[in-house]
Amino acid sequence: MHNADTVSVPALRVVLYGALVYDLADLLTSKLSVPVSVTVLMGTEEIGILTAACAEADVIVAMSNLDLPPAPRLRLLQVAGAGLDRIDLARVRPEAFVCNVYGHDVAAGEYVVLAMLAWCHRFVEAHQSFQAGSWRMSGRFRAPLHEELFGKTVAIVGLGPIGLAAARLTKAFGTTVVGLNRTLRECPSFIDELHPLSELSSVLPRCDFVAVCVAQAPETTSLIDAAALRSMKRDAVIVNVARGPVIHEEALFHALRDGTIGGAVIDAWYQYPHAADFQTRPSRFPFHELPNVLMTPHSAIWTKGMIERRWTVIATNVEAIAHDSVVSLQHVVRPSA
Amino acid sequence: MHNADTVSVPALRVVLYGALVYDLADLLTSKLSVPVSVTVLMGTEEIGILTAACAEADVIVAMSNLDLPPAPRLRLLQVAGAGLDRIDLARVRPEAFVCNVYGHDVAAGEYVVLAMLAWCHRFVEAHQSFQAGSWRMSGRFRAPLHEELFGKTVAIVGLGPIGLAAARLTKAFGTTVVGLNRTLRECPSFIDELHPLSELSSVLPRCDFVAVCVAQAPETTSLIDAAALRSMKRDAVIVNVARGPVIHEEALFHALRDGTIGGAVIDAWYQYPHAADFQTRPSRFPFHELPNVLMTPHSAIWTKGMIERRWTVIATNVEAIAHDSVVSLQHVVRPSA
Repeated sequence: MHNADTVSVPALRVVLYGALVYDLADLLTSKLSVPVSVTVLMGTEEIGILTAACAEADVIVAMSNLDLPPAPRLRLLQVAGAGLDRIDLARVRPEAFVCNVYGHDVAAGEYVVLAMLAWCHRFVEAHQSFQAGSWRMSGRFRAPLHEELFGKTVAIVGLGPIGLAAARLTKAFGTTVVGLNRTLRECPSFIDELHPLSELSSVLPRCDFVAVCVAQAPETTSLIDAAALRSMKRDAVIVNVARGPVIHEEALFHALRDGTIGGAVIDAWYQYPHAADFQTRPSRFPFHELPNVLMTPHSAIWTKGMIERRWTVIATNVEAIAHDSVVSLQHVVRPSA
Repeated sequence: MHNADTVSVPALRVVLYGALVYDLADLLTSKLSVPVSVTVLMGTEEIGILTAACAEADVIVAMSNLDLPPAPRLRLLQVAGAGLDRIDLARVRPEAFVCNVYGHDVAAGEYVVLAMLAWCHRFVEAHQSFQAGSWRMSGRFRAPLHEELFGKTVAIVGLGPIGLAAARLTKAFGTTVVGLNRTLRECPSFIDELHPLSELSSVLPRCDFVAVCVAQAPETTSLIDAAALRSMKRDAVIVNVARGPVIHEEALFHALRDGTIGGAVIDAWYQYPHAADFQTRPSRFPFHELPNVLMTPHSAIWTKGMIERRWTVIATNVEAIAHDSVVSLQHVVRPSA
């Protein structure tokens, strides 16, 4: 039983694919002024269902296309995040556009500041010990003095959207902000010094915090290696909201365990669980046993604002395809051939 | 055996008195260019020792004078903090000045932002659960979305040094900052709206965060009462870095327990331990059992920067007395008669 009104409109066929995407169909359609036919796939369906949906798809929204059947009609592969590490461009037909989305810079920038403040003020330890009944962290009873973010020198490694957001917020706290980037652009007012990444080792010895905000790429993998960690102050703290492997895993663990650096606040890891295997530890080293590590499970950017901003862009791109207005596409990673 | 050189100088006699002051003699003398004779008292000494030291004192540095013997030569009672709730001015001879110190606004302002960010990003819960091995807070595995401070409306109740510092830092996060103060001064650029305290109940219904930064006084005790708490959003969060009783104790507990507000981050309490009685809970209500409370033991301002700034002022005031230059005294609470 088809409704004649809907059938008469040649609706764009949009496939939402994968665990981080499938339940956002209502959010997407709420932002669209064009009719679309949405198929929702978790990725766990029988192959026949996946194949049939992809065969008809005009647009696929997904975090990864590694396991997707061919999509011979595809006009847009919309990556639902910024990272392209799980996208194989060779698997996307040349006639299709590939776009990604950002919108996580606000959340990640806030996380960097939160990480530094929590470290300075020993917030987690103060809460945990006080909730358990101890006044030992109290200023009224001669606890060790905490630090302030005020006056600290903070290196921001990588000045993409996350690094710029982190730098801008950090500067508001009366810090010295040292920006490091592969390419040197004009220096915004909230960055006190701008250096190329190649000068990392000469910058690190005077930094109290090192916020790693750089994209993972061959040239940034193990960018923070044993030598870089050795050049840091003994009380310096590293914050990672980028990708785990940007910091050398074993060297970081040893530096933290041996106290050659002060500590770390880590949101980006070396190992992630597959599907439901929630026993996977985030590293082959027991970071969770170190008292100088604050750790979160890749949750820094997981905010309502991020989803809202990303799906506003995704809806804009779906409408661009619907209207055959590809010049309106945002964040084109690979144009149509 | 006296050294003739030192005896010949009529050194100022300075008494450091009490648990939060006694061990800072070296810090004080390191900042002084005049010779002083420092006597350190923990407050637990025999009365004869206390009486003898106070009888000779030119300057006493203390957090409280409630238990101090008379000081007939006193020229300056230097309170080592901002609060005067444990200072009895009637016990200070009229010829003496009374000064206090601030320098905690940076730390408290940072704490307010830290509290809001930690709440938005569920930082403590994410760290604790992940350290224990769970990925349930991970954005990769469909955790509930967190909030951002960006875009929130934040009431700053009380625009003294702490409130102004908190407002300035909060504004940097793309928030709407609503300032409330007893007296209305010129509105700084980082405050979007300025209201008298009397308009509190009309402002609260649209605030996501309420940061209590107001000094405790008869007119601010229970300023945030049951009615004020009822006027807040159901997901609003209150932050208290001021004094516990500014928020009505029982009403706050019930609002948090019953979920009529979203949560609280509390550093200022209703009960404090006496001396070594560390079993004292901070309230007669079990705030520590509530899952929507982050709690710290009056540690928000307990930073190295605060001590450094305060004792720089204290040293300046000691030198002013040594040089008979009372116009140089900073933060005079009560001038000499």
